[in-house]
Amino acid sequence: MAECPAAIRFGITGCADIARKLAPNATLYAIASRSIDKARKFAAHNGLSGAVKIYGSYEQLLDDPCVDAVYMPLPTSLHLQWAVLAARKKKHLLLEKPTALDVGELDRILEACESNGVQFMDGSMWLHHPRTAKLKDLIFDPKLFGQTDFIRSTSTLPGTQDFLESNIRVKPNLDALGALGDVGWYCIGAILWAKDYKLPIVVNALPDVVRNSAGVILSCSASFHWEPADKTVATSHCSFLSHTSMDLAMTGSNGSLHCNDYIIPYQENSASFDYTSGATFVELHIGWNVKPEEVTVTSELPQEALMVQEFARNAENIRKFGNRPDSKWPDISRKTQLVLDAVKKSIDLGCKPVKL
Amino acid sequence: MAECPAAIRFGITGCADIARKLAPNATLYAIASRSIDKARKFAAHNGLSGAVKIYGSYEQLLDDPCVDAVYMPLPTSLHLQWAVLAARKKKHLLLEKPTALDVGELDRILEACESNGVQFMDGSMWLHHPRTAKLKDLIFDPKLFGQTDFIRSTSTLPGTQDFLESNIRVKPNLDALGALGDVGWYCIGAILWAKDYKLPIVVNALPDVVRNSAGVILSCSASFHWEPADKTVATSHCSFLSHTSMDLAMTGSNGSLHCNDYIIPYQENSASFDYTSGATFVELHIGWNVKPEEVTVTSELPQEALMVQEFARNAENIRKFGNRPDSKWPDISRKTQLVLDAVKKSIDLGCKPVKL
Repeated sequence: MAECPAAIRFGITGCADIARKLAPNATLYAIASRSIDKARKFAAHNGLSGAVKIYGSYEQLLDDPCVDAVYMPLPTSLHLQWAVLAARKKKHLLLEKPTALDVGELDRILEACESNGVQFMDGSMWLHHPRTAKLKDLIFDPKLFGQTDFIRSTSTLPGTQDFLESNIRVKPNLDALGALGDVGWYCIGAILWAKDYKLPIVVNALPDVVRNSAGVILSCSASFHWEPADKTVATSHCSFLSHTSMDLAMTGSNGSLHCNDYIIPYQENSASFDYTSGATFVELHIGWNVKPEEVTVTSELPQEALMVQEFARNAENIRKFGNRPDSKWPDISRKTQLVLDAVKKSIDLGCKPVKL
Repeated sequence: MAECPAAIRFGITGCADIARKLAPNATLYAIASRSIDKARKFAAHNGLSGAVKIYGSYEQLLDDPCVDAVYMPLPTSLHLQWAVLAARKKKHLLLEKPTALDVGELDRILEACESNGVQFMDGSMWLHHPRTAKLKDLIFDPKLFGQTDFIRSTSTLPGTQDFLESNIRVKPNLDALGALGDVGWYCIGAILWAKDYKLPIVVNALPDVVRNSAGVILSCSASFHWEPADKTVATSHCSFLSHTSMDLAMTGSNGSLHCNDYIIPYQENSASFDYTSGATFVELHIGWNVKPEEVTVTSELPQEALMVQEFARNAENIRKFGNRPDSKWPDISRKTQLVLDAVKKSIDLGCKPVKL
């Protein structure tokens, strides 16, 4: 067996764009596909170094003791099986969203990670962009923003005819949650993030659900309600049938903000949002006393690499210092999945309110 | 009796800021308040010319045959009585929003206007801003924007303690519709405007209604649904308990737009919005292929003056050419009131869906 290098060695199960995910403290060590031919083609197409191991099955990759961590961009219906196996093989697990078909499945994955002492994180890359931290500074500033009362998020993309007919995201046996699981994960995640992961008490799907002929959700909306003292309402809209949008807009008692590219910034090296604080109308309603202020945050690494960097840092801390895995990341994933499940349940009940 | 000048002579019932409402084809001819003292004070405070007649009752103003048109910014509960009387006295009627306590009342006002051949218009000044026309060009451009599928509008303002305790807008005997009638009129109006006044088939208040101790609505949200072929969902949020916001955001099949000051532009002489069309992610998700484009529209007159100008033009056409009143404006008001009533009904039913 080769001597193990210092950086966390990643294995990837499935073929996915990985170029953005390389971080200084992570090494691509192995890839696996369901066939060795497919894996080799992927390696060649991506110009991977000859040092990267190529496996013709996920199991072989998980059996390699030099693999520290696995990035798993598999169809959702395969998560339970392979994520649990990865955890049992002591691999830290970076799992693509949606994390599972429901929170029951996710709990089995999280239990496997917990009992095997490995780090779990889902692939919500936008949480790792420095702009996201800056946004959080603003919305939890009682003077600039105050108490949040209205949050609205969208995550939409225009599915091509080909996508809508044959992409795994619209296949009931592969990604049964459709647009709700895929793009909806971001909308719901952003709403929870904005509430610092305090769960709503009621979730209500809106009666605008569009499904394909196989019953998979292509578009849906929902509203989210917290206990009365919170005074917060949120709405989400996710769709494979609409122009690209990823709006996060919020209003608080003292301020408001708009970020229209919260999932994937317009450009890679810097990202912005605007906010207004203490706005009122000047006399005679001829304008506002303050205009929106634009805040721009630069980023040296792509947000995917920042995610991998954070994940690998946790893995290093476990390996080097015997730390426990950071519970923040599985907690975030579990809450997101729980609320996503509630939206699904509301849809299945004919858009009735669902209590959490 | 003095000789009548060419411009349309306005009377104002009630004391309200009027400086923004002067248009080239309109003259302020008279004001009235419930007491002559109050009317005189208002005239002095606003530096009105000595030529402006001052009345100590609304009835006296409506009895003046030289008054061509009335601007009526009275509390909503007084609209039915005074608007019907104004129409009977053959005065064109510019009525502040909400137009009435319900569509039944509004119908009596509109019937009075119709049978007396006078123009009706409500005070939705933003409809008259040239930016609004530019926005409409965009959203009805099938190539740039495509079919509208998601509309969200807000209209919120932070009511001071004093406002929340004593403003007429939160008094059940004066403006019983509270925030829904006042700021909500804009939200709902904007949604209908965006659908070219095609009515939704279902309206559903969201369970986040806040009322004051007298039962008047201080904050509420709603969703709006069109027939399935339309594929449109809209959400509104109006509040007296939140930071100033007036967002109109829309997504269509080919484009999206954001306008965050649709009711009162940030500044008076120009106004903007941004839109994105044909956006997708560049390879590897490192950004968008197109960035939002900002469109700026200049305006020589304040939107209130543009509204009065349009209203006075209609009044002139009736006087000079014997035209019928333009039915566009009462139609818009009636549809807005109808949908507002449906939101109110949904709230009263405990946020159940209401069919239109």
